[in-house]
Formats: sequence, C-alpha cells, structure tokens
Amino acid sequence: MKQLRIGMIGYKFMGKAHSNAYRSLPMFFPQAIKPEMSVICGRNAGAVNQAAVQLGWSDSVTDWRELISREDIDLIDINAPSNAHKEIALAAAKAGKHIFCEKPLALTLEDAREMLHAAEEAGIVHMVGFNYRFSPAVRLAKKLVESGRLGTIYHFRAWFLQDWIMDPEFPLVWRLQKEIAGSGSHGDLGAHLIDLAHFLVGDIHEVIGMSETFIKERPIATEMTGLSAKGSKDDPKGPVTVDDATLFLARFENGAMGSFEATRFAAGHRSTNSFEINGSLGSVKFDFERMNELEVYLTSDHEDVQGFRRVLATDPAHDYAEAWWPPGHTIGFEHTFIHEMLELSSAIEEGRQPEPNFHDGVKCQAVLEAVERSIDERRWVNISEM
Amino acid sequence: MKQLRIGMIGYKFMGKAHSNAYRSLPMFFPQAIKPEMSVICGRNAGAVNQAAVQLGWSDSVTDWRELISREDIDLIDINAPSNAHKEIALAAAKAGKHIFCEKPLALTLEDAREMLHAAEEAGIVHMVGFNYRFSPAVRLAKKLVESGRLGTIYHFRAWFLQDWIMDPEFPLVWRLQKEIAGSGSHGDLGAHLIDLAHFLVGDIHEVIGMSETFIKERPIATEMTGLSAKGSKDDPKGPVTVDDATLFLARFENGAMGSFEATRFAAGHRSTNSFEINGSLGSVKFDFERMNELEVYLTSDHEDVQGFRRVLATDPAHDYAEAWWPPGHTIGFEHTFIHEMLELSSAIEEGRQPEPNFHDGVKCQAVLEAVERSIDERRWVNISEM
Amino acid sequence: MKQLRIGMIGYKFMGKAHSNAYRSLPMFFPQAIKPEMSVICGRNAGAVNQAAVQLGWSDSVTDWRELISREDIDLIDINAPSNAHKEIALAAAKAGKHIFCEKPLALTLEDAREMLHAAEEAGIVHMVGFNYRFSPAVRLAKKLVESGRLGTIYHFRAWFLQDWIMDPEFPLVWRLQKEIAGSGSHGDLGAHLIDLAHFLVGDIHEVIGMSETFIKERPIATEMTGLSAKGSKDDPKGPVTVDDATLFLARFENGAMGSFEATRFAAGHRSTNSFEINGSLGSVKFDFERMNELEVYLTSDHEDVQGFRRVLATDPAHDYAEAWWPPGHTIGFEHTFIHEMLELSSAIEEGRQPEPNFHDGVKCQAVLEAVERSIDERRWVNISEM
Amino acid sequence: MKQLRIGMIGYKFMGKAHSNAYRSLPMFFPQAIKPEMSVICGRNAGAVNQAAVQLGWSDSVTDWRELISREDIDLIDINAPSNAHKEIALAAAKAGKHIFCEKPLALTLEDAREMLHAAEEAGIVHMVGFNYRFSPAVRLAKKLVESGRLGTIYHFRAWFLQDWIMDPEFPLVWRLQKEIAGSGSHGDLGAHLIDLAHFLVGDIHEVIGMSETFIKERPIATEMTGLSAKGSKDDPKGPVTVDDATLFLARFENGAMGSFEATRFAAGHRSTNSFEINGSLGSVKFDFERMNELEVYLTSDHEDVQGFRRVLATDPAHDYAEAWWPPGHTIGFEHTFIHEMLELSSAIEEGRQPEPNFHDGVKCQAVLEAVERSIDERRWVNISEM
Repeated sequence: MKQLRIGMIGYKFMGKAHSNAYRSLPMFFPQAIKPEMSVICGRNAGAVNQAAVQLGWSDSVTDWRELISREDIDLIDINAPSNAHKEIALAAAKAGKHIFCEKPLALTLEDAREMLHAAEEAGIVHMVGFNYRFSPAVRLAKKLVESGRLGTIYHFRAWFLQDWIMDPEFPLVWRLQKEIAGSGSHGDLGAHLIDLAHFLVGDIHEVIGMSETFIKERPIATEMTGLSAKGSKDDPKGPVTVDDATLFLARFENGAMGSFEATRFAAGHRSTNSFEINGSLGSVKFDFERMNELEVYLTSDHEDVQGFRRVLATDPAHDYAEAWWPPGHTIGFEHTFIHEMLELSSAIEEGRQPEPNFHDGVKCQAVLEAVERSIDERRWVNISEM
Repeated sequence: MKQLRIGMIGYKFMGKAHSNAYRSLPMFFPQAIKPEMSVICGRNAGAVNQAAVQLGWSDSVTDWRELISREDIDLIDINAPSNAHKEIALAAAKAGKHIFCEKPLALTLEDAREMLHAAEEAGIVHMVGFNYRFSPAVRLAKKLVESGRLGTIYHFRAWFLQDWIMDPEFPLVWRLQKEIAGSGSHGDLGAHLIDLAHFLVGDIHEVIGMSETFIKERPIATEMTGLSAKGSKDDPKGPVTVDDATLFLARFENGAMGSFEATRFAAGHRSTNSFEINGSLGSVKFDFERMNELEVYLTSDHEDVQGFRRVLATDPAHDYAEAWWPPGHTIGFEHTFIHEMLELSSAIEEGRQPEPNFHDGVKCQAVLEAVERSIDERRWVNISEM
Repeated sequence: MKQLRIGMIGYKFMGKAHSNAYRSLPMFFPQAIKPEMSVICGRNAGAVNQAAVQLGWSDSVTDWRELISREDIDLIDINAPSNAHKEIALAAAKAGKHIFCEKPLALTLEDAREMLHAAEEAGIVHMVGFNYRFSPAVRLAKKLVESGRLGTIYHFRAWFLQDWIMDPEFPLVWRLQKEIAGSGSHGDLGAHLIDLAHFLVGDIHEVIGMSETFIKERPIATEMTGLSAKGSKDDPKGPVTVDDATLFLARFENGAMGSFEATRFAAGHRSTNSFEINGSLGSVKFDFERMNELEVYLTSDHEDVQGFRRVLATDPAHDYAEAWWPPGHTIGFEHTFIHEMLELSSAIEEGRQPEPNFHDGVKCQAVLEAVERSIDERRWVNISEM
Repeated sequence: MKQLRIGMIGYKFMGKAHSNAYRSLPMFFPQAIKPEMSVICGRNAGAVNQAAVQLGWSDSVTDWRELISREDIDLIDINAPSNAHKEIALAAAKAGKHIFCEKPLALTLEDAREMLHAAEEAGIVHMVGFNYRFSPAVRLAKKLVESGRLGTIYHFRAWFLQDWIMDPEFPLVWRLQKEIAGSGSHGDLGAHLIDLAHFLVGDIHEVIGMSETFIKERPIATEMTGLSAKGSKDDPKGPVTVDDATLFLARFENGAMGSFEATRFAAGHRSTNSFEINGSLGSVKFDFERMNELEVYLTSDHEDVQGFRRVLATDPAHDYAEAWWPPGHTIGFEHTFIHEMLELSSAIEEGRQPEPNFHDGVKCQAVLEAVERSIDERRWVNISEM
C-alpha cells in the first residue's frame, strides 16, 4: 500500500477538523491508505507545538517553505488564511507534493487559475475542501438527480445563513478584511452553495447579485481564535471591507433557475446551510443543521400519500453509512471531513484526481467573481466572460 | 328532499361549533339535506336570545322540555353540560326525535347504555360527537389501516395534552366538578383518544390506568364562559373532584398494544391531540395542532428514500378536500364539525345510523369506566367486565 | 347601524371564499356591520343562479352593468378574471359604490392608477384582496416588526411555491394567458409576496428579476372550473403566454435586502407561501401551509435557550383569535377572508379607508411591472421610474 | 498526571464506539487524562487481532482472565454480551481494576447488586454506560430541571422506538435470547429511558407494565455482526425468548407521572429515543434522531410569543459545545461516548465516582425487574419491594 505522509499548514478551526479526519480514517475506513500525520506548520512556535501534541502530529515547524522542502512529505494540506493559499500551493506543486487546499481556493480567479495550472503542470493530485458534498444526505440528493429520479431540474435555491457577527461590537477579525479573506459571506458561505450547485445541478450560465455591509466599522480585534473573538466599544475601530451578505440570481446552462443567499446577519441561524431542488419528477430539501436528513418528494408516490418524506441518511443504502453506526444513529459536522479525506486517499491510491479538485475550485471562483462584477457593474454577467 | 329541522340545547363553545357547521353545510356540501336552524335552547333567556341572533337560529326557548315537545323539530342537538345529556336524550327519544349528542355520551356507562337502549327502542337516528374522526388526515389514516396498507397493527399510542388549567388560580369551572363533568381530562380528552383507537385499531380488551389531580383546590369561579374563566387568590376555594391527568395502558382485541395519556398539565401544549400507529407495513402519525397533515411511513418505499412523509390531506384524493379549497389551502378545527354534520345529514337521508353513534358512545364509556375501575382497584380490568 | 348590501361579480374560487366570509362575519364578529348578500353576478345564467342558491345570495344577474346600476347595492365585490377588474371598477366608482377588488388590481400599473384615481374622485371606500395579511400569525409578525422587537430589518426572503401546472398536459386555462391574467406566477403568487413585503418591511427601492416559462405550449382547455381543469395529449395546443416562475432581488427603501420567488413548478409544494424576516434583535418565519404558526427568534432570550420558537397564534394575545376557538384549535385558509371582510366592514362603519386599499394595489402593481421591465431590459429598475 | 491504561473486552458495535471515544478524548478534551488503548480482548484471535489494528489498540488477547491479571492495566471496559458482565466485573474488581461496564449492568438485579457490592468492597472507580446522558441537549434539559426553571415536574413520557427486527426473517441473534441478553427491547432500550428518568426527574416509586413478543419464532442466525445479521425462510427456527416491546406506567417519588415505551416494532423509527418533561413553569422535548436539539417551552415568555423553541445545543452556553465546532455545527451519536469517557477520566483523576455508576446501574435494574414482575403478576409493583 502506498504512503500518504502529510504536512499541514494551519491549525485553527479547519486544522482541527482535518486532523480529526486524518486520525479517524483508518478506524472507520480501514480500506483506505492510512494518512500519516507527519508535520504541522504554523508561525507561532509555541502554539503550533501545542497543536501538534493535541491534534496528534509527529512534528511541527514554523516555516512552511521548510515543510514543503522535506522529502518525507507526500501531501501538503493548506488551511491557512485564504490570502496564503496561492503562494503555498505554487511552491508545493513545484516541489511535486499533492495538495489539499481549503476553500476558497484563492482570493481571485486569476490566482485560482494559476494554482490549477501549476498543479496540472506538476502532475500532482489536487483537491479543494468543499466538505458539504460529503454529507450522506447530500450524496443521496446527488444520486437522485443523477439517476434522473427528480426529472428535469427547474429550480435550485440555496441559502447559507449565520448570525455570529451580528453584534456591532464583534471585532474586525481577518475574515472581515478583504485583503486576507477575499470576501465576506460571499466567499466563505456562498462559495459552498455555488459548489453544491455545480455538484448537484451543473454549470452556471449567468448571474446577477447584490451585497451589503450592514456594520461598516468594527473594533479592531485584539485577540482571536478560530471563529471566536472579543471586542469592546472602546477599542479603536477599522473599516469592514467585505460583504456581510450577498445574494444573487443565476441561470444554469441546463435552463434551471437559481437563487443564492449568503449572510452573517440572519438572527437565530447559527449555521443554516440549506438548499432545495425542484425537478419535474420530484424535489429534495437539505439543511445542514439537520445534516443527517434529506427531505424527498417524488411525484410517483401514490396520489393519497404524496408528501415530502424525511429520509434519515443512516441506512445501509446511503453512502458512508455502513462505516458508521446502526441506522438512526447520526453523525455530525466533522464526518464530512472524514469522507472528504477518504476521497482524497482513494484518489491518490487509484492515481486519479479526486472530486472536488482545483477545477472545481476555479469554477467556483469564476462564479464568485462574476457575481462581484455583476454587483459592481449592476448588470447580468455571463460566466464565460470571466 | 327530507327536512332536518334542528333544536339545539346549549350555546357555548360546542353550540357555536355546531351552529357554524349547520350553517356551512349547504354551501360546501350542497348535496346534503339542508339543516334548518330552528330553535336554540338555554336557561338564561337574554343570553340564549342573543345567541340565537348571533348564531343564526330562528327561535329560542328556555325550557328544553318545551323544545322537545315541538312538532316542528326533527333532531335534538345536545351540547349542554355532560350531566344533562341523559335526561334530555331519554325525553327526545321518547318524543321520536333524532339525536345528536356531544361526547361524553353520559356520566356513567349505565346511563349511556340506557340512552342507547332508549334510542334503539324509539327507532331514531342517533349520533355522538367524536368530531376528530372527521379530520381528512384522520380519514386517510383510517383508509390506510383498513385497506391493509399498514399491515398488522402492533402499536397505538396517543396523547391529548393541554395546559389551560395549569395556573392554580384558574377557578373551579364545571369541567372540574365530577357531578357535572363526570371526569376531568379523562372524559374530556381521553374519550376522544379512545374513540380514535376504536375507529382506527379496533376494540380494546383490557386496560390499566393511573390518574392524578395536581391542584386539589381552586377558587370558586364567579364568572365563566366556554373554556375561559377568571379566579383570584382571595376567592373562597373548593375541591377539584376530577382528574387533571389520566394515563392508561391497553391491549386491543387484535393483539395491538396501546398507550393513552390525557392531561391538562402539559405546559406549552395548547391542544395537542396526537396519535401514532405502527403496523408491520407502515406507520402514521397525527397531531391535531397540524390537523391538515398526516405523517406516513411505508416499508414498501425504495430502500434509499424511506422516511416519514408529511402528507397534506388537501388533495382531491383525500376525503372532503374537494369541497373546500385547492390543494395546499388548509382547513381548521371547525371543519371537523361540518363533516360530522354531513355524516349526520347523510345518514338521516339514507335511513341508516351514522358513525359514530350511541354504540360508539357506549363503547367509549365502557373503556373510560374500566380505566377508572382499574385505578380504584389497582389492577387490569377487562372491558367485558363492564 | 349602517347597511352593507353587496353585489358580487364572480362566483368561482374567490367568489366562494368571499361568500363564505360575508356569511360568517356576523357569527364570529357580531360587532361588525352585517353584510347583506344581495346580488351575485355572472355571465352564465344557469350557473350563477345555482351559485346564488349554494352560496347564499338573495338574487342573481348576468349583466354586471345592471348590478352596478341598482340602488339597493352599497358595495361591489369584484372577483372576476383580472382583465375585467378595471372596467367594472371604473363603472362602480362612477356609480358611487364602494369597491372590494381581488388582486391583482389590474393588468397594468396604468390601469391600476386609473382605478385608484377613479375611486378617490368618487370618494368611495376601496379595498384590494391581499388576504394573507389577515392571518393571525402574519399579524403577529407585523406587530413584532412595528414595535421594534425585531430591531433593524436586514433581510426579507419570500417564496410562494406551487406545483399544480407541472403536468405538461395540464391545459391552457385563463390563468396561463397574458391577455386575461396579466402575468402568471408573478402576478398570481408574487403579488402576494410583494404585498406582504410592503406590509411587513416597507417600500421597495429597486428590483432585478428573471423569469421562465418551462412548458411553452399546452392543450387548449375544453373545460375548467376554479383552479382545476382537464386536458389531454391529443387536444390542439396553444402557447403559454405567462411566466411559470419569476424570481427577483430587491433593495428596500430602509436598506433591507429582499429575495422573492414565485413558481408553479416546485414539485411537492401545493401552496407554500412562506417568508422570513431577519432583524438585528430577532427573526420570524412563516409558511402558509402551517398558517397558524409563526416561528419567532429573539436575541434577548437567555443564552442557553436561544432558538426559534413555534408560536401557535391561537392565544388571546393574538389578533382575531378570541373570536374563534380555544387556544390550540386552529383556523384555515378561508378565515383570512373573514378577517379581511371585518376590516372592510369596520372601515365602512368608521368612514375610513381599509388596509390594504387601492393605494396598496397600485404599489404592488408598480413593483410587479418594475420586475417585468427589469427582466425585459436585463437591468436594475428603480421603482420611482414606474 | 495519572495513567489510565485500558483493557477492553468486546469489539463489535460498542467496542468500536468506546475505542473511538478513548482515541478522541485527548484531541478535544486535552485537559483529561489521556486513555491508553492498551489491550483489547475477544474470543476469536484473528478477529480481535484485526480489531486491535483497526481500532487502535496496542495489544490483543483472547482470554479475559489473562487481561484482568495484567499489571499494566488500570481499567477494564466491559462491552461483551450482557450475560458476561457479571463474572468479568467481579474478577476485575477483585483484581483492583477500575471498571467501565456497558448497560444493562447485569441480567438480574441480584447480579447487579453483587457487582456493585464487589466494586465498593474493592474501592475501585465504577461506571455504567448510559451514554445518552451525555448529549449536550440532555444536559441542558437536566440543567433546566435542576435549576427549577421548569418548576414542579408533573409528567415524564419517553419512548425508544426502533424497527430493525420487524422482518420475521430477521434471525435469532443473541439480543433475542433471554439467557444472553436478559431481556429484549426492555433491557436494551427501556433501560436507557429509565436511566434518563432517574437522571432528569428522580426516583421511581411504583410501576406497572405490559409486554409482547410479536414474532415468536425466528430463523437461527448463521452469521451476525454488531446489530446486523442475515436469515432466510428455510433456516431452522428457534423461539424468541425476549420481549419485542415493553410499555409501563410509573409514579415517581416526587409525584410526577411517567409513561415509558420501548419497542423494536415501530416501522419508520430507526432509533427514536425521545422524551418529554412537563413542569409547572415549562416543558422540554428531546429526540435522539435530532440529538443536537432540545425543544424548550417556558411559561415566562411574553404572552404573544409563547411556544416551544428549538434550541440547538451547540452554543458556548451548552455543555461540551466549546470543545467541538462553532455554533450550528452539529455532533453525532459517537460524541456521547467521548463525553462519557471524559466523565470517567475526570472522576478517576479527581478520585470520585463518576455518574452514572453502578449505583445507577442497580437502580435501573431494579426498575427493569419491577416492571417484569408487574407484568408477570399483573399488578403494580413498588420499587421498594425489589
């Protein structure tokens, strides 16, 4: 069996999720190549050292270039802030390392394309972290669409609603700064919706959007970790340079109509990542807060018992389910990453590109930027313009 | 077409629901005999007169004996307090009037049997007001059971949960006095569950129960109307002589297991009248607070899309639905009474007994009393003992 | 007490709903002026005569001009197909009759404005039939917004999803013909969403939309009634000239962001009329298929019990509830019309304009047309352009 | 920091869940003693060896006595079939090992008491595996009850519904044999409900129950693993000696009324472990299929927004949540075991007994047996009789 020695850059929210996934893979999917959690990398020596111990990495370094130069590493996992993705990925590709990169792939479409080009030139395996594809309930939706059981797709509507920065005193974390994060809710949340749309419905033809920054200035963050941070009224303030909410309409290549909304200002929604698909033969609804469930409607049901059924995607008939617990015993957020790493590991073993890979990352970035252009220029933008 | 001239005794909560039903029948079910709202009867002349005007009755009287003696009345509708049912029904039967009687039929099984006997002797049409049978979603459940689509029935569990008397200052209304109401949650709410069990699953073989009166004394009510009343701490108190909650287990004749709970002390449940049936081929769930819906599970569904489906019983395939609004446009509590009066009117026209009739009222009373005996004697009671 | 003698034009779906409302008003809201159901009008003498009997009207006529000319009529209720609204309304206003007109007010904004102008010139009372405003749960949403309990409004998203014409063999009924209906899902369903947006959030500043007709030809209908009709493959076909689905984005005057979707191609949605509002202090969600419920989230809840609560709007604290049944006993679709007629009757008695009136009808029409223009011209359209 | 070297007996469903918990503890709760996964034990050498590799144990043995005799083991984790618990636990206690034992503690109350006695004599730390206590949403329920925020408790109703053996061809696995499993749904599912009742409401005073075995003979299993197994019509059959369903009523010491139902014959319920508590100041509802949620009703809510709120127990205010993912990102079944092992580890470190421990196991067993006696003798049984 091949080796898969990993060097990971980043150790906060995503670093923890990835570590847990690498660590869990052999127990639940023993057929996969076992990832070796070799080296973790972060700028703060003390912190990254502590993370190595807690998260189970054999070694830690503070310089990502050093990590990339090591012979004993097969794959670079990039989950540093978004503005660091490109430089690291280019270097990793050049060094012939496989790459797993968190989404969004890059800050701009141009950068994303450069990364894809470099990866293809280097002939490495590349993957991008659209983890929601790996919910069993989402796989079921995919299966129903792909097999034609929903018929012709007419509508895709999706919304990713959060409320964690609604307090005006919440500080100016990096996710609220354009030069680091690229965009706000759009790239963070909307990107997931766009990828799900690509995965489930197909390519997008044209878009038009709108966006808003409701709170335009915030206290400069003095301390932050993962998604949490603290600020106060008396702190000096700085401008929020990303969107708090972005909505857009889309027309798919296949004629379906799309509606997308990403916001961090939906009180009561901690993390509602939800979509619905309507086809000529049926519909599906998904909400990540109830990620084990898919609501399914089929027009072929007997006329007196037609209705959305709540399918708990924990039966043997559902992807990944048999690796886990008996039917009715649910899994959680972190499991999407374990399934993601299974795809990564399988692709490497089988010598193919995993899905989603940098192509998908580029495609997502093209839509993200097309939406931004449509907002700037107040007009419909065709994706082929990008 | 035959005539159906009605004399109604009672004009509070149920009187209003019945009046609305009689009044609505011709508009939505024009094929039915049109009920004539002839005379309404109540002890307080001013109040009953006002009710006649508001509810649409042609005439009003204060003496129910006078009402029964009138030649121009075909049917007596009894919705006075429970302790008055028997005397009125016996007199009405003797006078050859058809009878619609609210549930519970009587305060005791003996009385109920006497009423049934009198009705049969007189050869009149008799009906008892178990209105929940007439929800389209409940009819769908019935259809699924009866046609065998749920297979062998293993379980019936039902609960009727309310919270309107949880405040200890809520006064001692007639519904809390045994000599008027017969029992508390048991006869008021549990009776409906028992009737639904009879309707949907079949006869009950044996029962064992428990009951409780959580608040044992209450202010004596100075003013009350329908279900609402006011009391205060300083009012003199009297003993509550009925149960606040009664639970029981049951074994059905067909081997199914039953669980029943009626309570007025379930905070947050304004009126949750709910049941679930589990059979070898499927299950159904119902909650009257969402009365237009039936949740249906069928084992015959394809293995990857098994789940409870939420059927909105407003399609043409559902009983009564076409008389109302287009699919997806819901009906409410009062519509159960309109459907009930349709059954009453149809039965009279067709010269048959409606369902449910006094036989069902007696059967329900037998279970109610068996449960009470099982509580008193702390043992299982066979319904055939009663 | 003043008189309110009604002449109604139209007797299908809406005619039945209105008749039921007039008939029910005195029983449940005895304080209101009692509407007299005087004359019903329709082109087919036999059918309208039968409708008069079934729906409870004293008289029927086949010529609406005759109806309007009658001295014994105070109010004209217009629920004929949309293309007839204008001519009737202008004549009624000229005759000094009060007018209740179903939505959409007219086929064009220009017509709607002419109708408003005529009504104002004539000094009559005018109302437009946006019945969903009159759900108790919607009133609760209004109250929460208006009192500031939801804080600054950031988002309004709404969708009205149906599936009744998804079958390509469903025939070309009048609702699918532009010259009669004006538009398809947009004017039929979207109009309700726009009115709710106006009612709950405020005026709309600009819009951009997209629309689609998925099934472009349909069998010419040979028989139709209300919303139901039959067609077959072998019937000759004609072009569908209205939209099957229309979506649009909106910016409100107060800065809130809006997303709207109306479609008749959402399999499994019989009639999902749903919205959500997110404000700085809380959120509400509504779905007409569960019209008695409003989901409410308040940021002021204790930190360990924050969540959307399902409020059943049947408590005494909720609008209209006390006129109906005890808490927990729900109402249905038709009740929105009864509450609507209560507002109409009250306004006439109090000598004021009801809400919503022709101003609201015009405002809605302006947004409908702005959306259409935005679709034609593929650009954002400011409502002030219209 | 103290050591916690574990020897685990059993490696199927529960063995996997425990292994995952031990393995995950240090990553998510680094403050806890790190469990060392030393030795795993099973009768089949090849299978247990493979399990050791897959589940991450350093060593494996086939003789549990050998395991217990090893010096380098601090704690024995018993998740072998129920009939093996007692002998192993007695030996482990005698050897001075701490014990974690899966539920039910033993096949009989007498055995359970003997195990408790042995554990106390030995002065070891002992714990029993009622993992559902460790759902964050259940902890929230506990907190609301304990702090008095629900007031006086009136009702506890609970049901654990499954459907995995409804097929009559499902074979006679050990869980269906009394001599190995002790009982069926009662001890497997009902035991969890009883423990939750003890945890959330308090001690039970008396019970009366009923039970049923719907399928009385089944094919003798030829192959089985965890909860899954295969049989066929042609296999020889043997008698099912445990209950398929057991229901009982209970009165708590504090006066609350209880209703319990455990069944494996509820079609559509893969694993619905659900309870509701009604108190004078509020109610809570829980369903393990949506284990991240607790529905909470509080009478103190403003009168116009009273309703059950859906609390997602993933906020910092909820137990365990901060160790996991940001608010709105859910956890699954397996996490209950991780929290369980945290309590085990913390208790060992702090030199106290964890909760739940063998006392709770005995208490649960007493109720289980009292219910069985009540069924045999068809009468109420007081727990103090046991």
